[in-house]
Amino acid sequence: MLGLICQASGVATKAAWCKKAAQGRAVVSFGARRVHPAIAPMVERNAYLGGCHGVSVPFAAGMIGEEASGTMPHALILVMGDTVEAAEAFDEVVDGAVRRIVLIDTFNDEKVEAVRVAEALKSRLYGVRLDTPYSRRGNFARILEEVRWELNLRGQGHVQIYVSGGIDEAQMADLNPYVDGYGIGTTISNARVLDFAMDIVEIEGRALAKRGKMSGSKRVLRCTRCRRDRVVPSSAGEAAACPCGGPMEDLLVPWYDGQKFLFESETPQAIRKRVLGELAHFGLDS
Amino acid sequence: MLGLICQASGVATKAAWCKKAAQGRAVVSFGARRVHPAIAPMVERNAYLGGCHGVSVPFAAGMIGEEASGTMPHALILVMGDTVEAAEAFDEVVDGAVRRIVLIDTFNDEKVEAVRVAEALKSRLYGVRLDTPYSRRGNFARILEEVRWELNLRGQGHVQIYVSGGIDEAQMADLNPYVDGYGIGTTISNARVLDFAMDIVEIEGRALAKRGKMSGSKRVLRCTRCRRDRVVPSSAGEAAACPCGGPMEDLLVPWYDGQKFLFESETPQAIRKRVLGELAHFGLDS
Amino acid sequence: MLGLICQASGVATKAAWCKKAAQGRAVVSFGARRVHPAIAPMVERNAYLGGCHGVSVPFAAGMIGEEASGTMPHALILVMGDTVEAAEAFDEVVDGAVRRIVLIDTFNDEKVEAVRVAEALKSRLYGVRLDTPYSRRGNFARILEEVRWELNLRGQGHVQIYVSGGIDEAQMADLNPYVDGYGIGTTISNARVLDFAMDIVEIEGRALAKRGKMSGSKRVLRCTRCRRDRVVPSSAGEAAACPCGGPMEDLLVPWYDGQKFLFESETPQAIRKRVLGELAHFGLDS
Amino acid sequence: MLGLICQASGVATKAAWCKKAAQGRAVVSFGARRVHPAIAPMVERNAYLGGCHGVSVPFAAGMIGEEASGTMPHALILVMGDTVEAAEAFDEVVDGAVRRIVLIDTFNDEKVEAVRVAEALKSRLYGVRLDTPYSRRGNFARILEEVRWELNLRGQGHVQIYVSGGIDEAQMADLNPYVDGYGIGTTISNARVLDFAMDIVEIEGRALAKRGKMSGSKRVLRCTRCRRDRVVPSSAGEAAACPCGGPMEDLLVPWYDGQKFLFESETPQAIRKRVLGELAHFGLDS
Amino acid sequence: MLGLICQASGVATKAAWCKKAAQGRAVVSFGARRVHPAIAPMVERNAYLGGCHGVSVPFAAGMIGEEASGTMPHALILVMGDTVEAAEAFDEVVDGAVRRIVLIDTFNDEKVEAVRVAEALKSRLYGVRLDTPYSRRGNFARILEEVRWELNLRGQGHVQIYVSGGIDEAQMADLNPYVDGYGIGTTISNARVLDFAMDIVEIEGRALAKRGKMSGSKRVLRCTRCRRDRVVPSSAGEAAACPCGGPMEDLLVPWYDGQKFLFESETPQAIRKRVLGELAHFGLDS
Amino acid sequence: MLGLICQASGVATKAAWCKKAAQGRAVVSFGARRVHPAIAPMVERNAYLGGCHGVSVPFAAGMIGEEASGTMPHALILVMGDTVEAAEAFDEVVDGAVRRIVLIDTFNDEKVEAVRVAEALKSRLYGVRLDTPYSRRGNFARILEEVRWELNLRGQGHVQIYVSGGIDEAQMADLNPYVDGYGIGTTISNARVLDFAMDIVEIEGRALAKRGKMSGSKRVLRCTRCRRDRVVPSSAGEAAACPCGGPMEDLLVPWYDGQKFLFESETPQAIRKRVLGELAHFGLDS
Repeated sequence: MLGLICQASGVATKAAWCKKAAQGRAVVSFGARRVHPAIAPMVERNAYLGGCHGVSVPFAAGMIGEEASGTMPHALILVMGDTVEAAEAFDEVVDGAVRRIVLIDTFNDEKVEAVRVAEALKSRLYGVRLDTPYSRRGNFARILEEVRWELNLRGQGHVQIYVSGGIDEAQMADLNPYVDGYGIGTTISNARVLDFAMDIVEIEGRALAKRGKMSGSKRVLRCTRCRRDRVVPSSAGEAAACPCGGPMEDLLVPWYDGQKFLFESETPQAIRKRVLGELAHFGLDS
Repeated sequence: MLGLICQASGVATKAAWCKKAAQGRAVVSFGARRVHPAIAPMVERNAYLGGCHGVSVPFAAGMIGEEASGTMPHALILVMGDTVEAAEAFDEVVDGAVRRIVLIDTFNDEKVEAVRVAEALKSRLYGVRLDTPYSRRGNFARILEEVRWELNLRGQGHVQIYVSGGIDEAQMADLNPYVDGYGIGTTISNARVLDFAMDIVEIEGRALAKRGKMSGSKRVLRCTRCRRDRVVPSSAGEAAACPCGGPMEDLLVPWYDGQKFLFESETPQAIRKRVLGELAHFGLDS
Repeated sequence: MLGLICQASGVATKAAWCKKAAQGRAVVSFGARRVHPAIAPMVERNAYLGGCHGVSVPFAAGMIGEEASGTMPHALILVMGDTVEAAEAFDEVVDGAVRRIVLIDTFNDEKVEAVRVAEALKSRLYGVRLDTPYSRRGNFARILEEVRWELNLRGQGHVQIYVSGGIDEAQMADLNPYVDGYGIGTTISNARVLDFAMDIVEIEGRALAKRGKMSGSKRVLRCTRCRRDRVVPSSAGEAAACPCGGPMEDLLVPWYDGQKFLFESETPQAIRKRVLGELAHFGLDS
Repeated sequence: MLGLICQASGVATKAAWCKKAAQGRAVVSFGARRVHPAIAPMVERNAYLGGCHGVSVPFAAGMIGEEASGTMPHALILVMGDTVEAAEAFDEVVDGAVRRIVLIDTFNDEKVEAVRVAEALKSRLYGVRLDTPYSRRGNFARILEEVRWELNLRGQGHVQIYVSGGIDEAQMADLNPYVDGYGIGTTISNARVLDFAMDIVEIEGRALAKRGKMSGSKRVLRCTRCRRDRVVPSSAGEAAACPCGGPMEDLLVPWYDGQKFLFESETPQAIRKRVLGELAHFGLDS
Repeated sequence: MLGLICQASGVATKAAWCKKAAQGRAVVSFGARRVHPAIAPMVERNAYLGGCHGVSVPFAAGMIGEEASGTMPHALILVMGDTVEAAEAFDEVVDGAVRRIVLIDTFNDEKVEAVRVAEALKSRLYGVRLDTPYSRRGNFARILEEVRWELNLRGQGHVQIYVSGGIDEAQMADLNPYVDGYGIGTTISNARVLDFAMDIVEIEGRALAKRGKMSGSKRVLRCTRCRRDRVVPSSAGEAAACPCGGPMEDLLVPWYDGQKFLFESETPQAIRKRVLGELAHFGLDS
Repeated sequence: MLGLICQASGVATKAAWCKKAAQGRAVVSFGARRVHPAIAPMVERNAYLGGCHGVSVPFAAGMIGEEASGTMPHALILVMGDTVEAAEAFDEVVDGAVRRIVLIDTFNDEKVEAVRVAEALKSRLYGVRLDTPYSRRGNFARILEEVRWELNLRGQGHVQIYVSGGIDEAQMADLNPYVDGYGIGTTISNARVLDFAMDIVEIEGRALAKRGKMSGSKRVLRCTRCRRDRVVPSSAGEAAACPCGGPMEDLLVPWYDGQKFLFESETPQAIRKRVLGELAHFGLDS
């Protein structure tokens, strides 16, 4: 069970970092296809809990009560032989409720292709996606700026711009000015696991722990005002106030009393909302 | 299925790097407890294929036809309250076929504890394991050198030294002179996935690929003498000789002809043997 | 006059570095349009003396007795609206003696455009030029490798690849495997001037120089075997042999005896040949 | 013509950086002798426009309606054999309107020579110039501090200190406390050219540009309050206010209406004044 | 005599830096045993003047009118064979006025040993000292945090924590939160000497100095408000006010008028008090 | 006594590094004036043992049976007011057996002064010394090259060049080509002490040591062929051969048997000779 927590927490934490760095823009988890299928639903669920806007695996989407989202694949464009033809075919056939987001990096330079697609689908075009290969990303922000400029110049200011392909949170500060949403792959799904460990710290009431661990059972307190955490022995009695003067709350609460669960299970939507609320308390570099 | 290959290959590759860096010493995969239980057998199998000496999850061990290995846990020592008492209890109860490898980092400094354990179990002691906490690893190689010295000085040259705890291949060059075997955790189980992609490169016999990919079906050739690889179009005819003059062999071979498999499935042992053979061709820094 | 020498020598030296780094590939000077028109002929002449294969300013070309070379401009393609159409128009109208080198970076990705152009002009196509904008140069060598691959795959192995746009000698080691020639601009024309100075070192036969300069008239000797230089007083008599044992020759020779020039003026071609000969003696990093 | 603009703008820009870094001290352009004589007047004119206090080439000085300035050369001191003798000869012969600025780095240490010269010329000495060779500049600021100290100690506080020789703007922060003026050579005259390019962005009213360029004709606006610039399509109508709330002005204005110039040509003095005014808006590190 | 001042000032200055970095914690000089015995008293005296709390050499302690301080040696623990036995023997035999500070790094990990010692000596234990070997200092602050935690958890909050062994001022910021006092060795006793030099700056009233030195006799003024120093010629008359507006005082005052000393000799205690007062004016990184 | 060994060994070791780096050139210890007078003889003796050519303190020189050496001081030149006058006075008065080495950095640039002094003392001049202030050392090697050139040009090739002033072994590789000898000050006299420690490693025949130390008495063996050292328990019996096959010798030998010394005391000259012999076995960077 420990492994489940370590890996799931790693994914959710990385998703939260990306969501924070995107500063309000949509972040969609695309990474499930690069991990073992057995854990794809776990990865998607935790990406969602950490703040992702949507997930791309239908099964996982069902688990969390959201709809899977996505855009047309490169394969469609390759088979059709032209981006505009593929966009028009997609537009003709697919249910009108689905947003038309067209991949524009397959054959041509994104600047040219964005204009061609926008002129073909007109107001029905919801967005374009740039999955630009790395060998063509000399200055990705500049490419995005050009696409935005050309669309705006032609009265297509409503077309949204999505980017994907090896994006991580460190790149977002540069790209945010031109981007409406991100598709994030292995950056989230292959996140570093959090090395939680379960340690014996007390034996029959006697504090005892191995070297490197602090012995005795503990309380973890968080100040509800400045969000600083503090670890104290369980025996510490009433939690002292934080140095900032704010009240402290216990982060560790009993979940099961040996017979029944003391809390109702939260919906993924409720958990995600709580995460986003906490995230708002932290600076981008903390 | 792609995700399976990406993650499995990442694990096997990292295991191979560790095995190479250990220069003949045993490498045991300890990392299964930090990944989701659903993929623990996959992780263990691929760690084994990449060259690990053994695995620590019994179920996975069964899958690959090997026995799970391990050493006594910190918990036993904490509950007994003393390393020597725990070692003696283990020695008294456990089947004699199991090697006595005693964890010596729980309470005391490793140098003192190694001598105490060796004097208690004498020739029955097979090895000691140092899972030394990071806060006590100022110069881990120096600690190991002292343990080796004190054991040798007391006629315990037969006692083997194992280390674990956040070890990666970069640390091994320093530690190898004093170490008989490594236990490797998340370094292997949380390895970076290899970003394999499946791309359309040909449509009905016509070479076509998206930007960033070379079009047309291909052969991947490896020189059997200098091990250099070369990618050529399928249409390239007979493989040219390598610049080194050695003969080239095709790395891509058909596995399934549409009706039956063309090769028999290899045992994990056979695959691992082949990996170790290939590994011998590469330098440590290649 | 000193300024003429300082700037001219700076240009010729940089051109020689580029020629050396190109390892036998053609280097054409493109930089004249970024310097004041009054010195463009000087820049072109010295780029040629330093080893450039050709120059792009007709007036300068005339001065050194070579023909100006160049390729079609972006403007032609923009006005025609399509690279292939522009290439076909150029091919139809321009004298057959002029090599068809087509710019392929204007609208589309180079990989796609190279194939389109090659299929249109077939064997008449001499080469393609990539002046790829910096924002699209994530890995320029990789783009070139793809262009080379796609051309070869379609039997267009004879088409040469030229690159231009902010190229300097440091980038060439990566690009050389895929490139047949370079167009170099401000790297050469805006080269750092060499800070030659004219100093008084002797007054009426008496050695005297300001601080920082060695006094007395001197000979500059170069070993004809190991190419090492040595500076000695004029009074040093017969030049000693080099430590390597090779004979030394004087690099400073009288050019004018007060009444007439003692040497005939060399042609630019002869000077360039001598420079290339000297260049062959130096390693790439010396 | 493009080359003229690229190189001239590079020179003027570098001169402006130097002027800014000198924080009010005089900056004189000395670099004309290290560039081709054909462009010396262009270099001098642009150094002046960028903020230089004077120029050293008489012809160029005439063009801009200023007098050439300079100090005695090393040659005079070498020929006279002693700095004080040379200073006295210069003082005796040269028109009294010319400022006596004596070079003090030829033979002796600057500290000693400054005192000797000041005691010889007394109140007629306007300044000393240190063109100290690099091999003697262990800590140039310290040498200047000593010269300043020794002059002040002897009641020669009126003697100004000028420095020259490979000075660039990065060194000025250290030297400014002791310096009254700088002579700047190749740092300005060999400035990096600005890579202006002329691009087609519209064909017969239709926006079209090559990759890497934004299409359509444009306005460049500058906020007259915060000095931030913004580029918008010509079709953007009335310029929006800056985010800071300040009014924007067009930087591109028509100069010629096809028949006559719409503005009178400015004097170099007027242009320079405008540059210095703009410079005052920028911080040293912007 | 110059050597005496250079070395003594180097020691006192380093001691002051350490005292400043310790931010109010005790700093004891331990370094006398690593310097030649002939200068141990000089080292100890100057360590004390610079702010050290005490010294460890009895002879030097006598000179400055303080008592030598120290803790039990490793030798006692090695000979007794156990830290607790040694602590109990020390506690039994040594005068009750001496503080019981027990070394806890000899055999066992500090965390375990701190608890054992505290439980044996109870309220009689004044402090523990960690002279932890470098090979065990992976994260010394973390080890100290654990020791502090375990003592507090067991009601031993009164036990002080001392550290020693290669400590320098750069490490103190990390360690201060858990430390009550430092023992500093060669960091202080082997401090870099201050390269004072005695230079001739005036000969029979005439200002004259070698290159690199400013000539003439001088006053050194310090602003009593902002503590900035300024050097002016002796002839400068009444000291100008500081730019900050504060009054300046002369730092150089006559000590001997040729017949008698003009000041009474200060006690080491008085000098140290003055140093600590000055120290309070400077920031940690000035 | 330990302090004596730590500091003395630090000085001797640094002197040996300097001697090695000087590659055969003379190294004279100048540093005694920057350390406490009580240890000046110790410093000088150990500088000599480490390989220094001479010492500058007469008392110390007497102790080791060598003559103190030195050159004229800056003070003499300042008082005389001119370097040449001081040199001539020194030459007139001082015993002819003393080598005329003239300081040439006091007032003028070294290049000028070297020539003046050489022309005044002619063949009687043995050498010049450059104690050039740091603020004038932009490129000290270049200054030395000029001095050497000017002397040679005037037939003064016999005049030796000495340098001093903050020289350490790292600078010598650059300076050696022009230098005949070095005067080294605080680099040697303020050398880092070697942190020898005396540790209990055996109690009544039982191996016991604190953490961080290897227990038991030991032999230190050095291979007489490859000079590699090895530490083994005393009980190790006959020393094994080195991996290189060379014979090993014991570095620890009894000096005193409880009643008498087993070796005769060596002269400083004999010790120094042995040190220089050992030094020859080591590379410059080992």
